[in-house]
Amino acid sequence: MKYVTELECIDCGEIYAPEPERYLCESCDDEGLLEVKLDYERLAVEWSREELSSDPRGNMWRYGPLIPVKPGTPRPRLEVGSTSLYHAPGLAKELGLENLIIKNEGLNPTGSLKDRASAVAVVKAQEAGRHAVACSSTGNAATSLAGNAASLDEDMEAVIFVPERVPGGKLAQLLIYGAVVVSVQDNYEKAYNLSAESIDRWGWYNRNAAINPYLVEGKKTCVLEMAEQLDFEMPDWLVFSVGDGCTIAGAWKACKDLREIGFIDKTPRLLGVQAEGCAPITRSFRTGEPLEVTSEDTIADSIAVGRPRNYKKALMAVKNSGGTMVNVTDEEIMEMMTLLGSRTGIFGEPAGVAGLAGLRREAAEGEISRDDDIAFVVTGNGLKDIDNARRAASEPLEVSPDIEELRQIFEQRGIIKEDE
Amino acid sequence: MKYVTELECIDCGEIYAPEPERYLCESCDDEGLLEVKLDYERLAVEWSREELSSDPRGNMWRYGPLIPVKPGTPRPRLEVGSTSLYHAPGLAKELGLENLIIKNEGLNPTGSLKDRASAVAVVKAQEAGRHAVACSSTGNAATSLAGNAASLDEDMEAVIFVPERVPGGKLAQLLIYGAVVVSVQDNYEKAYNLSAESIDRWGWYNRNAAINPYLVEGKKTCVLEMAEQLDFEMPDWLVFSVGDGCTIAGAWKACKDLREIGFIDKTPRLLGVQAEGCAPITRSFRTGEPLEVTSEDTIADSIAVGRPRNYKKALMAVKNSGGTMVNVTDEEIMEMMTLLGSRTGIFGEPAGVAGLAGLRREAAEGEISRDDDIAFVVTGNGLKDIDNARRAASEPLEVSPDIEELRQIFEQRGIIKEDE
Repeated sequence: MKYVTELECIDCGEIYAPEPERYLCESCDDEGLLEVKLDYERLAVEWSREELSSDPRGNMWRYGPLIPVKPGTPRPRLEVGSTSLYHAPGLAKELGLENLIIKNEGLNPTGSLKDRASAVAVVKAQEAGRHAVACSSTGNAATSLAGNAASLDEDMEAVIFVPERVPGGKLAQLLIYGAVVVSVQDNYEKAYNLSAESIDRWGWYNRNAAINPYLVEGKKTCVLEMAEQLDFEMPDWLVFSVGDGCTIAGAWKACKDLREIGFIDKTPRLLGVQAEGCAPITRSFRTGEPLEVTSEDTIADSIAVGRPRNYKKALMAVKNSGGTMVNVTDEEIMEMMTLLGSRTGIFGEPAGVAGLAGLRREAAEGEISRDDDIAFVVTGNGLKDIDNARRAASEPLEVSPDIEELRQIFEQRGIIKEDE
Repeated sequence: MKYVTELECIDCGEIYAPEPERYLCESCDDEGLLEVKLDYERLAVEWSREELSSDPRGNMWRYGPLIPVKPGTPRPRLEVGSTSLYHAPGLAKELGLENLIIKNEGLNPTGSLKDRASAVAVVKAQEAGRHAVACSSTGNAATSLAGNAASLDEDMEAVIFVPERVPGGKLAQLLIYGAVVVSVQDNYEKAYNLSAESIDRWGWYNRNAAINPYLVEGKKTCVLEMAEQLDFEMPDWLVFSVGDGCTIAGAWKACKDLREIGFIDKTPRLLGVQAEGCAPITRSFRTGEPLEVTSEDTIADSIAVGRPRNYKKALMAVKNSGGTMVNVTDEEIMEMMTLLGSRTGIFGEPAGVAGLAGLRREAAEGEISRDDDIAFVVTGNGLKDIDNARRAASEPLEVSPDIEELRQIFEQRGIIKEDE
């Protein structure tokens, strides 16, 4: 916390002390989102790229001076971060581009970028003196919270509220991590409300990225890490899928931090991609009108957020970066799952590859130039959503155990050529 | 290939040149397994721990001098290796141990240790001048082959033969990676035979870890990496689950290599763990009798190998290390999935945690001492087998959206205490 100065309301500018349980701005009727402010001047003097490069830690905590947690608070043992960055010339060519790099966040310990936020959450929970941390989610936020809490040496219960119809796979992951999973026999809204009431009543730490200002600071480490992996030469465009808006807000916060402390000169433009079946932020971005709550009709469940609480930070991020937003269909997302998999060996979940579908659109329409340097982040592992992967993929070749039959099928498909 | 001298038959000692498509010993009727021989004397002189530590590559290729591939052959772009090593004091205590470390191989790019073998396979396929590489498998060998082939810049088709009843999830992963998946409308044996006939007829590269001597050399990098992560202080015991025997054989090869070139002084004892429902290697280890083919009755599908082709190397590995073998039940495996998950945040597939169940047995029976240093390898990601995870895990708490009902349930379970 050495370089954290205060929390500032992004609506009214009210200032708060950086207490671990300060979530929202009181002056804005507990609706105003807060942003963590850092002492950039002091950071620029006291920290350097050289010092960073000599840090032996191969995880997100190497960016400690920019993360609002106390140095002495125990960290989860899961090694969050240090995910691979790939050059993808084959895929770039398919999209009519020259230089595409991909960061695979699906390789985080519980399989998504959300580990970065949850790692911060379980540290802040300890700083708040809490022994339980809660959220309502059916997805990556919940599983990452459960996994990171489990990996702490200290006692920390993860309490997860899920609606009745949570998919079996994600439920399994939560239960294996030993979380207290409360299945609310009703819809998501009711599960959320019960979680809010419970957090209030039993004083658990609140891991809700939309209102907890510290979690964006965890998410930003994805882009801090990417910058270091690129020797601080940022790309022209940085592509993210967008759900509640926290991830792309974190991406921009990272760019801002790095520029202010002199680690980078150029910040990238952000391309935010939503699913057509749930695109309230894109709509607001394009029309300039206030956000309207929408339905949630897409296979990309991790970005299906009809009432995104963090849309203001997301809109500011895209606008301030000089970027843009675009929507894609579920068909495009499924097509990109197989294109990404077959050209790079990376298996992303639908929300994780939605950004790639948006990139293809913008490249085809000339919004993004062939010779721009582009970085795209796969936010979650495809193994988390096997059902949609199965829908996206082709069918296997069905044959009898007979090599002549196989030969015929292979020849028809052009897999082999025989002179017989 | 600088330090590779020859291939040697482990049965008759016949020597072969290290050609990429030399799989088995002709003198033993194509049944004799071959072992890659290295020039340890030259390695000891020309390579050092210091040189290794200055290698900038954060993947398995940093152990290049010990891997039998040519330096110029293009590597897959997937970053295989550099998986996390965790100290697990909480879990150790549960097992009555003092020092337990865990290497999580589920964090490899396609989710298992098999990526290390498949990465070598696609390199050797190129050295053989092949543009297709094949295997018959429904599991991690197949998915890792498909992913690694997809990530090559060069054209390399992965042809995978699966039996009719392959699980949908693994099928999805294969198809997303763009493999040619041949679904043989019959059992595994028929699928295997058709693959062997096809490989022979169309001259594809053979990625079958049981007969291809180079693949064990890829697998061994898991233990090379562990040694480096431990500053070359090897543990007293190294614990692996055992299926066809290749992985534990690779582990021992790594220990032997490191000892012969002077990187380590002490080699660990190996604990090999099989599932009670399919334990032909343990039986042979205990009785000293030749291997008998068994049925395959366990949830740990990745180690359910009733006819293990590599059992001789596995037996030699365990014996030469001064180690032992033990079997565990499916119930023990499921129990360990939740214990591992809830104490460490690591989610392993059933075969991946079977070793832990064996460790608990041996620790309880005093075969392994409380103060021994123990390393355990989780070989595959739990997200690959959600159905069994769901069986292993407890049920969520089902409640109406009513905080009074929730309070009662929480109090019954001891999750909260209220003075009301």
